[in-house]
Amino acid sequence: MKILIVGAAGDVGQTIVTELSGRHKIITAGRNGGDVRVDISDRASIDAMYQAIGQVDAVVSATGSVHFAPLAEFTEAQFMLGLGHKVMGQINLVLAGMAHVSDGGSFTLTSGVLDRDPIRMGAGAATANAALGGFVTGAAIEMPRGQRLNVVSPGLLEASQQRYGAWFPGHMPVSSKRVGLAYAKSVEGALTGKVIIVE
Amino acid sequence: MKILIVGAAGDVGQTIVTELSGRHKIITAGRNGGDVRVDISDRASIDAMYQAIGQVDAVVSATGSVHFAPLAEFTEAQFMLGLGHKVMGQINLVLAGMAHVSDGGSFTLTSGVLDRDPIRMGAGAATANAALGGFVTGAAIEMPRGQRLNVVSPGLLEASQQRYGAWFPGHMPVSSKRVGLAYAKSVEGALTGKVIIVE
Repeated sequence: MKILIVGAAGDVGQTIVTELSGRHKIITAGRNGGDVRVDISDRASIDAMYQAIGQVDAVVSATGSVHFAPLAEFTEAQFMLGLGHKVMGQINLVLAGMAHVSDGGSFTLTSGVLDRDPIRMGAGAATANAALGGFVTGAAIEMPRGQRLNVVSPGLLEASQQRYGAWFPGHMPVSSKRVGLAYAKSVEGALTGKVIIVE
Repeated sequence: MKILIVGAAGDVGQTIVTELSGRHKIITAGRNGGDVRVDISDRASIDAMYQAIGQVDAVVSATGSVHFAPLAEFTEAQFMLGLGHKVMGQINLVLAGMAHVSDGGSFTLTSGVLDRDPIRMGAGAATANAALGGFVTGAAIEMPRGQRLNVVSPGLLEASQQRYGAWFPGHMPVSSKRVGLAYAKSVEGALTGKVIIVE
């Protein structure tokens, strides 16, 4: 398969590249690097990316920003960062990409653990993660030409533990191998409309 | 209890008023009517509403707009209507209201069935509904002074069946009584951080 991986340079993105690159042709995309540049907050940038790469068999997204803050200090603009960037940016990868993915191809988005196992300062992330699960459930039944749509919801990655672990008391980090396998399940398997939990 | 009901004139809002008005003092709020006017898309309007009514023991929201369209025709602006209005508007009722709700008081928001039982044209609603579930899960653990936070997720209401039923093939409508009871469970009970499903 020819697979586009958006956010390939991040902790999650690297696990996806490692898992899939031995068996597939990978095209990496990112804001600051990769085979092609893309800013997922800008629909025109997403359209330009798809025009540049031609048809692919799968799109995998491991990108999107959210704000972390104590609930009492959260502003509307900080909440809307998660809804506008992590949620709408990934939804736009699907809306813009349906015409560029082959029949029976797939989209795999990335959410995270905080909507099922919350932490302090994580209300914005919990909202965004859950929204992506709802999108996948709602949109999968309307995908064209047999295209599939899932979202992977990984726990705190072992690779991210040193930077973020103190914010996640009691969370068991998940191995890069398990995270990579979840994306393989979505891309190479037959599931659609699923939140694929890694924990 | 003194209970603020935002969106009291809608199909869901009326079930809440019917269920709670016999036992509590109700203040109704809406865009075009009620004891106090409020536009939930405008944080300043929400702040003004709370200033006008003084302290309450519970806030119940049954309001928020989403767009319905075939997935292939959905635009970014149409998705952002649900995220900006139904999601952010209800979140702002909580963020702005925490200082105006009594110790141990509660917030009860409203989502809907489409993130667990999707229909055609419902991807925007599914995304917004799920986002509200994630917000409640994430934010409940940080609510101040024993305040609680839940969201009621009702199926298609019997009262709405004539207008919207054709869009919901195979959905069993839920009675106004069951819907009202779900809000009573949230307001008068002790739950927090829950998606209270009515089906």
